[in-house]
Amino acid sequence: MSESKEHGFVLDPRLAADTVFIADWHLSRVLLMDDARFPWLILVPRRASAAELDDLAMDERSELLHEIDRAMSMLRSIASCDKLNIGMLGNIVRQLHVHVVARREGDAAWPGPVWGSGSAIPRAADARDMLVGKLRTAS
Amino acid sequence: MSESKEHGFVLDPRLAADTVFIADWHLSRVLLMDDARFPWLILVPRRASAAELDDLAMDERSELLHEIDRAMSMLRSIASCDKLNIGMLGNIVRQLHVHVVARREGDAAWPGPVWGSGSAIPRAADARDMLVGKLRTAS
Repeated sequence: MSESKEHGFVLDPRLAADTVFIADWHLSRVLLMDDARFPWLILVPRRASAAELDDLAMDERSELLHEIDRAMSMLRSIASCDKLNIGMLGNIVRQLHVHVVARREGDAAWPGPVWGSGSAIPRAADARDMLVGKLRTAS
Repeated sequence: MSESKEHGFVLDPRLAADTVFIADWHLSRVLLMDDARFPWLILVPRRASAAELDDLAMDERSELLHEIDRAMSMLRSIASCDKLNIGMLGNIVRQLHVHVVARREGDAAWPGPVWGSGSAIPRAADARDMLVGKLRTAS
């Protein structure tokens, strides 16, 4: 996928404000949600104006599926989890993005969804830096 | 995908109780959530024991992606919507299933997720039958 396809892509400022950069994969920017309650990654395909899954070309959708797999493996490598949750909502931030969240029975939102559940608890700086380091190594 | 791969598949009784059968596609059983608040389809890959996306083989994941596209198109054909929401949660029902939901600004859960939002409002029988007929024709 060429650089030109990324032309005009700018990360939505609300996603930027809530997350820490982990990596740029082939299609997606990989972000860690800064919420100590859940191991939670967000994949943002670097395509300007994409809001719905089918705004991506077919080969990009396949790539996104592959990157969701990678995100699932990354989360399993850094956290124990009972279930992975995957969501593409976009009701508030329209820029296409995929949530991949490691869930534990009894976690702060269990068994409900993480979206709209209470308020994020930012990580302490040292815990955040350690986790970001692990994720960058695993990515 | 052969019949043998479906061996042992039984729809989870909680999914069965909350939905109406629409069709069996190549991989997934297609169900309409019986909730008048939202146009809401559920795709259930007919594979016994699948709980996470990566419990499916790669070709099955690609097929699921294709069927999610079809479900999005079906919803657009029967309802106006401002955003489509796609979710794979499985915190309550572990059998792998994909929610595809047509959302309108100002709907009963907007801008939050539909999952865990209030209680389903079953459709009146005639409205449900009409919608099911449209979906079966479109499927």
